[in-house]
Amino acid sequence: MASLRVTFLGPAASFSHQQAAINSFDKSASLFPSLSFADAFSAVQNNTADYAVIPFENSTNGSVVQTLDLLADRQGLYKDVTVCGEYFLTVHHCLVSGKLLSPTDFTSITKLYTHPQAWGQCELFLCRYFRGKERQDVSSTSKAADIVSKDTSGQTAAIASKLAAEHYGAFVLQENIEDEEDNTTRFLILRNIQLARSGDISANLSNVATSGSDTRKTLISFTIEHSSPGALADALSVFKTHGLNLTSINSRPSLLRPWQYIFFIECEHVSTAKDPSAIHDTLEELKKICTSYRDLGTWTDGLVSPDLA
Amino acid sequence: MASLRVTFLGPAASFSHQQAAINSFDKSASLFPSLSFADAFSAVQNNTADYAVIPFENSTNGSVVQTLDLLADRQGLYKDVTVCGEYFLTVHHCLVSGKLLSPTDFTSITKLYTHPQAWGQCELFLCRYFRGKERQDVSSTSKAADIVSKDTSGQTAAIASKLAAEHYGAFVLQENIEDEEDNTTRFLILRNIQLARSGDISANLSNVATSGSDTRKTLISFTIEHSSPGALADALSVFKTHGLNLTSINSRPSLLRPWQYIFFIECEHVSTAKDPSAIHDTLEELKKICTSYRDLGTWTDGLVSPDLA
Repeated sequence: MASLRVTFLGPAASFSHQQAAINSFDKSASLFPSLSFADAFSAVQNNTADYAVIPFENSTNGSVVQTLDLLADRQGLYKDVTVCGEYFLTVHHCLVSGKLLSPTDFTSITKLYTHPQAWGQCELFLCRYFRGKERQDVSSTSKAADIVSKDTSGQTAAIASKLAAEHYGAFVLQENIEDEEDNTTRFLILRNIQLARSGDISANLSNVATSGSDTRKTLISFTIEHSSPGALADALSVFKTHGLNLTSINSRPSLLRPWQYIFFIECEHVSTAKDPSAIHDTLEELKKICTSYRDLGTWTDGLVSPDLA
Repeated sequence: MASLRVTFLGPAASFSHQQAAINSFDKSASLFPSLSFADAFSAVQNNTADYAVIPFENSTNGSVVQTLDLLADRQGLYKDVTVCGEYFLTVHHCLVSGKLLSPTDFTSITKLYTHPQAWGQCELFLCRYFRGKERQDVSSTSKAADIVSKDTSGQTAAIASKLAAEHYGAFVLQENIEDEEDNTTRFLILRNIQLARSGDISANLSNVATSGSDTRKTLISFTIEHSSPGALADALSVFKTHGLNLTSINSRPSLLRPWQYIFFIECEHVSTAKDPSAIHDTLEELKKICTSYRDLGTWTDGLVSPDLA
């Protein structure tokens, strides 16, 4: 079989996306970047990628709404895209500059660059060394590393990954500058449900092969009649009836009418012989309560991967 | 009584915030800008403002996570801040530039500026004219208008309001570029629950005085024991038991442990004599199921305001 084609968000996005793709698959997989979230979904739908590795949520910043909006698939563009795995990547931020400086020389730095989300993740470090210094938002942490790598004056620094610093030939002045030690991004792995060659998940995904976890997760989206009292509570209680533990809820605008939502329910269950029927029966009951619903996939829990052990 | 002091997000923020504040209160109110979401919450907590008008969700983009994170109040900084009203404002986006260009000349534009949320609200328009063009996030749509107003080369454009374009002397190249005609932002009105002078909501808020709506909304946040199966479904069914219709659910990272969440439940109920006890009884039952909970306030439904009629 030809090597697996795996797409990730790049090159504009942070290197962490590439790292998640590298770690999730065997070295023989052929990786290529997609320029946007929508391009990655299209690549899977159109079979130009066997898999896509897409950020879903961050332990500090919460859900990635671009991913939720594409999973909502309001125009029916991605009807065969399904979630088949997940990968947890712990993100470490570094202070990066085009000049090698020791902490006592950080005072020479007058301007900092990074992605807007990264400021909030390094607030304690920034308060200690860079209170009141100018902050410039840029589109990605790797872009920030790129910018400062070209300035050897010692007046600029970026918050970026070690990988980005190495790629652009910048100096890592300090590692692990994030406030929370566990700043982890959860990536979803997507495949086309019609494509046989991507079907053998445990053979293709390296962390699934090694995890041996019995816990399975399922993602289901649905819409309800907004004006029907209790419809949302009814829909959620169906999951409980069938022994499915709700682990997360997200909602996004339905875009059919204002203040109507599409809900995303993630539930956890232990893989048993009864398992497929629990999901099937849940969907059958949701059919009666919801105006629309979709099974977005079932996969093996990735939290037991060696990275978080 | 001295005139009411009302704060809104500005001047860095979009003009729509000021507009929402103007429309929500009597002309005698004294408006002043807060530089950040946190500053607006602090102003209410510290009684330097009687009310704050804060964006909560947009009909296209969904929830405003900064507001949810401040309502989560993980450090207990805003314990007296409560929601006492809401206001719906329809927002129209324009393509704005420092040079007057016709649509056939849009190809000269190589870089776009706007607030991160505005990209998602104008995706169809952006796909049509600006696929693959560089996008620069800035702190507000009015800041974006400010930046491009100074560039007469025709290479930059912003997504901003007509009001912002006029303020900065920029050209409006195209109006109403939002995907959904009904691009409405819902603002929450906050007060300090300890402050008597802001207590007479129906006298102070102009849309409450005129709406005559019987429908009330309540916002409650809670956390649950993540490992307890069915705890979330149980918590939600409490609302139904007491006749409260769930209208929205949001979740944010709890920041206590990764992959644990704080949930925000908004529910709707008709104002009756039984009403206060329904909320009270719901909270009493949540106490038994949840690891923490908070009543974030009850207010009169604002959807009947003349703007949306």
